[in-house]
Amino acid sequence: MEEGSVGIVKTQTFTFARPPNGMILESGKKLGPITLAYETYGRLNSDKSNAILIFHALSGDAHVAGRHHKDDPKPGWWDNMVGPGKTFDTNRYFVVCMNIIGGCKGSTGPSSINPETKKPYGLSFPMVTIKDMVRAQKELIDDLGVYQLLAVVGGSMAGMQALQWAVTYPDRVALCMPIATAVRQSPQNIAFHEVGRRAIMSDPNWRNGNYYGKTPPIDGLAVARMIGHITYLSDETLRVKFGRRLQESQKLSFSLKPEFQVESYIHHKGETFTKRFDANSYLYISKAIDYFDISNGYGSLEAAFKDTKSRFLVISFSSDWLYPPPDSEELVSALRAANKEVIYYEVSSTYGHDAFLVEGEKMRYIVSYYLDHARDKGKLESYQSENQPLS
Amino acid sequence: MEEGSVGIVKTQTFTFARPPNGMILESGKKLGPITLAYETYGRLNSDKSNAILIFHALSGDAHVAGRHHKDDPKPGWWDNMVGPGKTFDTNRYFVVCMNIIGGCKGSTGPSSINPETKKPYGLSFPMVTIKDMVRAQKELIDDLGVYQLLAVVGGSMAGMQALQWAVTYPDRVALCMPIATAVRQSPQNIAFHEVGRRAIMSDPNWRNGNYYGKTPPIDGLAVARMIGHITYLSDETLRVKFGRRLQESQKLSFSLKPEFQVESYIHHKGETFTKRFDANSYLYISKAIDYFDISNGYGSLEAAFKDTKSRFLVISFSSDWLYPPPDSEELVSALRAANKEVIYYEVSSTYGHDAFLVEGEKMRYIVSYYLDHARDKGKLESYQSENQPLS
Repeated sequence: MEEGSVGIVKTQTFTFARPPNGMILESGKKLGPITLAYETYGRLNSDKSNAILIFHALSGDAHVAGRHHKDDPKPGWWDNMVGPGKTFDTNRYFVVCMNIIGGCKGSTGPSSINPETKKPYGLSFPMVTIKDMVRAQKELIDDLGVYQLLAVVGGSMAGMQALQWAVTYPDRVALCMPIATAVRQSPQNIAFHEVGRRAIMSDPNWRNGNYYGKTPPIDGLAVARMIGHITYLSDETLRVKFGRRLQESQKLSFSLKPEFQVESYIHHKGETFTKRFDANSYLYISKAIDYFDISNGYGSLEAAFKDTKSRFLVISFSSDWLYPPPDSEELVSALRAANKEVIYYEVSSTYGHDAFLVEGEKMRYIVSYYLDHARDKGKLESYQSENQPLS
Repeated sequence: MEEGSVGIVKTQTFTFARPPNGMILESGKKLGPITLAYETYGRLNSDKSNAILIFHALSGDAHVAGRHHKDDPKPGWWDNMVGPGKTFDTNRYFVVCMNIIGGCKGSTGPSSINPETKKPYGLSFPMVTIKDMVRAQKELIDDLGVYQLLAVVGGSMAGMQALQWAVTYPDRVALCMPIATAVRQSPQNIAFHEVGRRAIMSDPNWRNGNYYGKTPPIDGLAVARMIGHITYLSDETLRVKFGRRLQESQKLSFSLKPEFQVESYIHHKGETFTKRFDANSYLYISKAIDYFDISNGYGSLEAAFKDTKSRFLVISFSSDWLYPPPDSEELVSALRAANKEVIYYEVSSTYGHDAFLVEGEKMRYIVSYYLDHARDKGKLESYQSENQPLS
């Protein structure tokens, strides 16, 4: 086994909300049965106090760490953070991650079979929200016998889920760790999502969502992903990584083919995404993110956070322009206004929004420290001055 | 006539590079005949010393000011800046603007008839560069009998043309005024353009560029424009203008239709653009911008600017993230390193890149001042402290 790796892991499934009951979603529509694909790493201790729930972002899945088989070319998406001796130390903690509902990585989503029609749901799948995702997650956490999670953790959309857990299930979270996220989706981000959706839905192969078994809307999905990918990186990353360097020859071809390396790179990112992701899931999940406003139904942020009982460790990244530091500062201010214990760090990074995936080393000590003390009584001492960016 | 308006104006044309000669482009390909659509406002004075050449940005045209007929619902795109008593005072200056080659607003471009085939060029139109555009412009300026332009002025891609004029024709520019632009297109901006091109070229109606007389690639072009439009605005503008406000009813519809106002807005911007712009021109012009690097062929910025003879007035906008202030600062540093006289102002604005079109009042005094003194001997005194943002 690789050092620091959780080794070979297996995705499991959990099914609930079987008909006729189902689960009533925020939209008022009913969904059921619901299957959640999930993975766990480490072992739940005897008093069930060491469980950490990690969420995934838009295009992620339940496979956080380890490999699915010996020759698996790539480990899980946060393998740098989860494993024996790592930040989320699986020698000490029991780590759980589930694919969200609406997804396409084993959990019930638009590509799943609709039991009523025996065909894939397509657009007959109901719209889901971050709160719906969280309510579904709680079913599995209950089933695992865990009452209070030591921590709920996630970056980007996953940070929204962390916040929603703290708000919806105040007794069940000791430490809430929203990373590179916001209290609500900004209009600029909604606009970027909507362009991606328009690209997918105007691809003739989309066929109003009924493309299963046929050619999927690859071009539209690639465009959506290319837009997304630009927003995940920083201008600086692109300048350093590609600059204006050309493909292959050092001369412009004066053609409509990709000539600059950065063009080939985003094409490649678009192409590979279409091989692993369902276009309808992209539509549904991006919508769920756009709907997100933690104050929905509360009238204000302060009111939304009023009854939370967890500590909050909020982390942002200096070069993230999708969920920039002021978004996290807005969250921190609201939590402080609601008299909650909140620790905030802006991490110095050039990696843009993707920093939450790659800057594991910079987050390691701070995250470990607050995990160690997640259930301490009284106010925690800061690990280091909050005004000093982590770098 | 409206006060401050140039009144009813007419687009004129100028044709040159007639076969067999044509014009040899940077790519090595030959283009001819070349027609330029242009408008002029004000009168050229007897010593031909009062001519100002204004350039247009990606989606612009030669129609800068005034109206085309009495009932014309909209004036030209910079009518707030050009007219009697305005910043570019047509009582004093002779203002010229041409549609660029590659465009679709009267100048020769991919939708023009290829004289060899008697059909629209489509993709047989050769790639053009900013330098090619500028060389074509010089033909008309020669024809108008103007030797030295009092000023060359433009924002965004138009600022690139202004810089190219100062570099390619050093004797023929007194004052170069690049606004909201850069010495070279950044990889992030290339990436945004490339996604737009991909959207157009994967629209089945694009038909490899041969769509003239058929349904044009409206969906692809709309997506390209929607992406572009987001980059022209600031996050703050979108927060103030739309926030997360919903369309019509105050409840989410939980559907894939646009629900937020910001979604409808960018759809509207996409749709209207497809009615006035040619998709192939979008491909060609965006490529020309991506190719732009004023140091091409010189090895360094300093070398590129070494032989320029004009003054430079460089203007950026604080919230512009497409061509952010550091891009202008890079230009200013290079000009200073080359011992050129350069005046730089960052204008405080929340309007993002579009500020160059709408912040006329903030630019008015500074631009007027340097136009008044464009040909003064010796170093000009600063109009106000450069370190103090204009607001």
